Amino acid sequence: MTGSKTAPFTADDYRARMERAARAAADAGLAGLLVAPGPDLVWLTGYTPTAITERLTLLVLAPGQDPVLVVPTLEAPDAAHAAGAPALTLRDWTDGKDPYAATAALLDSGGRFGISDNAWAMHLLGLQKTLPNTSYAALTDALPMLRAAKDAAELELLAAAGAAADATFEEIRKVPFGGRRESEVGADLADLLRRFGHSQVDFTIVASGPNGANPHHEVGDRVIEQGDMVVLDFGGLKDGYGSDTSRTVHVGEPTDEERRVHDLVREAQEAGFRAVRPGVACQEVDRAARKVIADAGYGEYFIHRTGHGIGVTTHEPPYMIEGEEQPLVPGMCFSVEPGVYLPGRFGVRIEDIVTVTEDGGRRLNDTSREMVIVD
Amino acid sequence: MTGSKTAPFTADDYRARMERAARAAADAGLAGLLVAPGPDLVWLTGYTPTAITERLTLLVLAPGQDPVLVVPTLEAPDAAHAAGAPALTLRDWTDGKDPYAATAALLDSGGRFGISDNAWAMHLLGLQKTLPNTSYAALTDALPMLRAAKDAAELELLAAAGAAADATFEEIRKVPFGGRRESEVGADLADLLRRFGHSQVDFTIVASGPNGANPHHEVGDRVIEQGDMVVLDFGGLKDGYGSDTSRTVHVGEPTDEERRVHDLVREAQEAGFRAVRPGVACQEVDRAARKVIADAGYGEYFIHRTGHGIGVTTHEPPYMIEGEEQPLVPGMCFSVEPGVYLPGRFGVRIEDIVTVTEDGGRRLNDTSREMVIVD
Repeated sequence: MTGSKTAPFTADDYRARMERAARAAADAGLAGLLVAPGPDLVWLTGYTPTAITERLTLLVLAPGQDPVLVVPTLEAPDAAHAAGAPALTLRDWTDGKDPYAATAALLDSGGRFGISDNAWAMHLLGLQKTLPNTSYAALTDALPMLRAAKDAAELELLAAAGAAADATFEEIRKVPFGGRRESEVGADLADLLRRFGHSQVDFTIVASGPNGANPHHEVGDRVIEQGDMVVLDFGGLKDGYGSDTSRTVHVGEPTDEERRVHDLVREAQEAGFRAVRPGVACQEVDRAARKVIADAGYGEYFIHRTGHGIGVTTHEPPYMIEGEEQPLVPGMCFSVEPGVYLPGRFGVRIEDIVTVTEDGGRRLNDTSREMVIVD
Repeated sequence: MTGSKTAPFTADDYRARMERAARAAADAGLAGLLVAPGPDLVWLTGYTPTAITERLTLLVLAPGQDPVLVVPTLEAPDAAHAAGAPALTLRDWTDGKDPYAATAALLDSGGRFGISDNAWAMHLLGLQKTLPNTSYAALTDALPMLRAAKDAAELELLAAAGAAADATFEEIRKVPFGGRRESEVGADLADLLRRFGHSQVDFTIVASGPNGANPHHEVGDRVIEQGDMVVLDFGGLKDGYGSDTSRTVHVGEPTDEERRVHDLVREAQEAGFRAVRPGVACQEVDRAARKVIADAGYGEYFIHRTGHGIGVTTHEPPYMIEGEEQPLVPGMCFSVEPGVYLPGRFGVRIEDIVTVTEDGGRRLNDTSREMVIVD
């Protein structure tokens, strides 16, 4: 089972979120929101189906209507136990019946709707066919910031997840690296994340030596050697909220060049962090980090955006990327994670989760950003 | 990580599957197939991204064109290592660029395409906007039987997964039930499935007493009592292929009624199995099982379809349901799993995976279907 344990919010919390979402939809000129199982539905209702299958489950939020969760009859008893269930009406449909007709009865037949990014294409096609005069926008395009600004309770949960990830780093730096496989260190990371309270481990990247030059390398069979740089990037969900941090360690003494590149990435990360304050566009965080690396002549080796949001998932808006003009708002939480990747040689990445405060940013990860030497 | 370990097929196997799929698309009047990460992509290429994110990954199969996998630059190195990679061309796109424009360049701008059921709505909307004269059908609607008829190597893997599930049942029937929580027996099931070679456990249903009357109850905190019926339904992936079997056991001696309902479900399961042969419509399997239960006066308590296909997932077409006129074809594999659910009291379900042979059906599960008495 990969379902995340959800945080202990009440039906009133979920009712408030659903009302806020319906208002935001109306303000954006939408006739409603169609919310599929996944992070949007967890955030709005606390409900995660046991398995996401081809059977349609869809929350319909429309301004001025009570929330309705369309759900397969088989799954209705589980849905009725969700923390947010008292704040909505269940409408179940039985195998063999048309779930799109059941949903269409709830919708303005000429309206424009926001639909969860990860709703199945199959279900969108079913709705488009049943109501040919409706139109749709991906929820992230229509209301990108719906879940972005966290409230105090959410910030506390994200800070706790970050602290658990930091505790994991403090332990992993003590284990032997040289002579062990990446996959063994990765298993240690997963064990530690769970020991420090994570219910779900999303990624445990251990990218040693030349593998570090591939930002999405996970773990492999490569045996870590003396003299390797090793990118560690790990996280998951604790009590329904995410962690995600990266540090790059070195097995034994680094060369001057390795130190120089590590310092450069640390300075870029610091510059990205310092750019964070309310009203600043997301792209400015990216630009601030990127400028440091580009000015040092390594611009072509920083091959990804600077960050992504985090909340009930480990990967969501807002994105710190060139072209994203969304202004930062207090309560937003996202990664600041520049990197330099030298093909065939090594990589360095340093990543903290940062939240926007009234007058700047606050890191939710705070282990040493100096290069840590491991055995 | 929940990615399934994939079976050891070769690039030639994947090439043949992609050619078969492109031909089937052409025969169905489609300009091509758009395949998203998930079971379709694993089956066609052996590739599973580390994580499914908002970044577009899409396999484009068009009759007369070489297969192209559109993939984020960050993930291209991993994709290049997939077993099917030698049989396709990678086309990567970088953060900040428009992946829909990159994909559109590969498509007939007025064509109709099949798209994976589970492709993200966000990506379908992106394609619809970029190419307004295209149209789309869910892959399961357009080519429902694309993955349904398994070849000899796939059947061998499914049989091995079924044997591992059967070995799990032979062990679980020996453990104590009475006085333990459902969740504890569920954990035993998961451990056993893994011990017998499963890399991924998809479900471990332990539904005791009244919980058995909810077909989708997973495991709860209920302490199993003497005199309980307990529905066990478990499965997952072994070497990339699925298992799924159900047996209903009883803690101590059953009542006459419990025995009668169990016998009835066993007869219904047998009737469903005996209906399996090439050329018979899927709905006939459902009807055969349902008739036994309806004739005994329990029709209203059999509240789900009789079965679903299995392959690289534990839940896929063909479906054994009223209205499904698809004829059975040798090599198809699916569950036959009638049940009776008496609200507030107990439930019974018996399930085997069955494959269609040249002249009938063959069970891939074969533990006793008599009621097993447990402690």
